[in-house]
Amino acid sequence: MTKLRVINFAVSLDGYGAGVDQTLDDPLGTDGERLHEWAVQTKWFGGPGSPDGIDDRFIDAGFESIGATIMGRNMYGPVRGEWGEDMWTGWWGSNPPYHHPTFVLTHHAHDPIEMEGGTTFHFVTDGIESAFEQATAAAAGQDIRLGGGVSTIQQYLDVGLVDDMHLAVVPILLGAGERLLDRTDRLDGFGPPEIVASTTVTHLTWRKA
Amino acid sequence: MTKLRVINFAVSLDGYGAGVDQTLDDPLGTDGERLHEWAVQTKWFGGPGSPDGIDDRFIDAGFESIGATIMGRNMYGPVRGEWGEDMWTGWWGSNPPYHHPTFVLTHHAHDPIEMEGGTTFHFVTDGIESAFEQATAAAAGQDIRLGGGVSTIQQYLDVGLVDDMHLAVVPILLGAGERLLDRTDRLDGFGPPEIVASTTVTHLTWRKA
Repeated sequence: MTKLRVINFAVSLDGYGAGVDQTLDDPLGTDGERLHEWAVQTKWFGGPGSPDGIDDRFIDAGFESIGATIMGRNMYGPVRGEWGEDMWTGWWGSNPPYHHPTFVLTHHAHDPIEMEGGTTFHFVTDGIESAFEQATAAAAGQDIRLGGGVSTIQQYLDVGLVDDMHLAVVPILLGAGERLLDRTDRLDGFGPPEIVASTTVTHLTWRKA
Repeated sequence: MTKLRVINFAVSLDGYGAGVDQTLDDPLGTDGERLHEWAVQTKWFGGPGSPDGIDDRFIDAGFESIGATIMGRNMYGPVRGEWGEDMWTGWWGSNPPYHHPTFVLTHHAHDPIEMEGGTTFHFVTDGIESAFEQATAAAAGQDIRLGGGVSTIQQYLDVGLVDDMHLAVVPILLGAGERLLDRTDRLDGFGPPEIVASTTVTHLTWRKA
């Protein structure tokens, strides 16, 4: 049975999943890169490995048994409004790290973009449920990773489609930006989380109760 | 050298150290008791012990080498304004768990109250620095525990007097109440925290850099 899973999504101690002012140079907004220092030091990202190996295990697990990805348009790129002439193909170069069908939520239609390595970006204009159905079909029995950003995860939480959610809580304060858990009902329907600490972050994993 | 230490102070995942509407029945405000379920199950509080023993160790450590306590008036009791006729002596019965001089910040003078078991409540009306000085003298070389609540801790953080701060982050959302880390500068001057997870909470300990 295909699950919709949030995996390795980083939030600050004060709850922000991204800073303000996303730009081409700052894909996660001002100070947002500080949310990902723990991740970029892992071997998967080409780093030396996390100090105790725990973050490496979580990052690696985020790519196992995943047959499709769903993401919001802001995670796909900085373009707003109509796509225009610019041939934006994501932040990840010619060979993105997904290697499977990847569904981008947008209000603006766009032909699919086939990348190297098995990633094809599909642009979904008819809503989050449609994206979920298409991703479920594409995943062929594997799970779907819900990439982000904050607004996309909130929308799927609000319709109860998220099966499990793994957040990496980074012990820094951003003070502004997009706050993931801004309402108390967003954890309704999940049991108490599993808690695992590395030397750098706290991994919290909620599963549907 | 006497340190001023925040120990075992519980905050929700969305950062609240207490809920709203503190009353005699709800000393921590609406839902605030949920912040302390992890603590009351420890042996120190007369519970069965925490599932993995980790929370027990943290709770026990919170009473070691402490020679004085400072707390805000709201932590001491629900009385507001003038003390009046009511002989309030704290939430903790005739033998409070402090067993040392305990300094209560207030705008309203009150004679010291000597309790059983070594706790004497002293009421300090001339500010947080004065309370710190009096507590330092009383601690006689041991450390001072800064009890809370949120506003009291914030005031001491803002003048840079806190040497280390241990928060127990409880993976629940309160959505309203008193938010401890509501400004990004409140962690300035501390290094990255030590992170220890139990099965129920995350223990974060910052020390002066």
